[in-house]
Amino acid sequence: MGGTSSPCASCKLLRRRCSPDCIFAPYFPSNDLCKFAMVHKVFGCSNITKILKNVPVEQRGDAVRSLVYEANARIRNPVYGCVGIISKLETQVLELQMQLAVVEEEILSIKMQQEFIFTNGGT
Amino acid sequence: MGGTSSPCASCKLLRRRCSPDCIFAPYFPSNDLCKFAMVHKVFGCSNITKILKNVPVEQRGDAVRSLVYEANARIRNPVYGCVGIISKLETQVLELQMQLAVVEEEILSIKMQQEFIFTNGGT
Repeated sequence: MGGTSSPCASCKLLRRRCSPDCIFAPYFPSNDLCKFAMVHKVFGCSNITKILKNVPVEQRGDAVRSLVYEANARIRNPVYGCVGIISKLETQVLELQMQLAVVEEEILSIKMQQEFIFTNGGT
Repeated sequence: MGGTSSPCASCKLLRRRCSPDCIFAPYFPSNDLCKFAMVHKVFGCSNITKILKNVPVEQRGDAVRSLVYEANARIRNPVYGCVGIISKLETQVLELQMQLAVVEEEILSIKMQQEFIFTNGGT
């Protein structure tokens, strides 16, 4: 039972016995079936197992969180998934960099004007 | 053969007959085994099939490109995958928004100073 009193969400959904060393049990508690259902739908059980086994135990919690996020993004946006979010953020970064360049240019121009006015005594 | 002269990369890797209506053939040409190998490693064949079938034909090219990007990110960073990229971009957006706020504050302050100088005749 993965160290808990009831089978984990993965074993519940896959209708199998939850062994004490179940790789999913620490990350998919029995009261949250939805979380496992999402990653299972997108990655499949054997792929999640492979990914988790490929990661040190202390980083598996983070790996599960990122897989859940990624699966959720793919379910919401079947064509672009996470890549849609990356694309929007990249556009936002470019827009902000452009805005920053414009404002910095404006500051430079104001400072040059000020310098000119002070040097020429306001004439 | 998915309409081409040799089996597509997917059928080649999975050692199966490539039928004329193979769902992978248009997106995984036989000369690029690596692309299919990557998505297969992360999502598995049946999950890629499900995702593609869930998407209109005219958007399947984009879906494949996003799956390849996502798989590549997961292989490079097994713990965070695409979510690592999203996290970095979110940090970059926040930093740029803060920089922009600082620079805009600076402009406002310079303009107020200028106004004060002009109103008080530089005294």
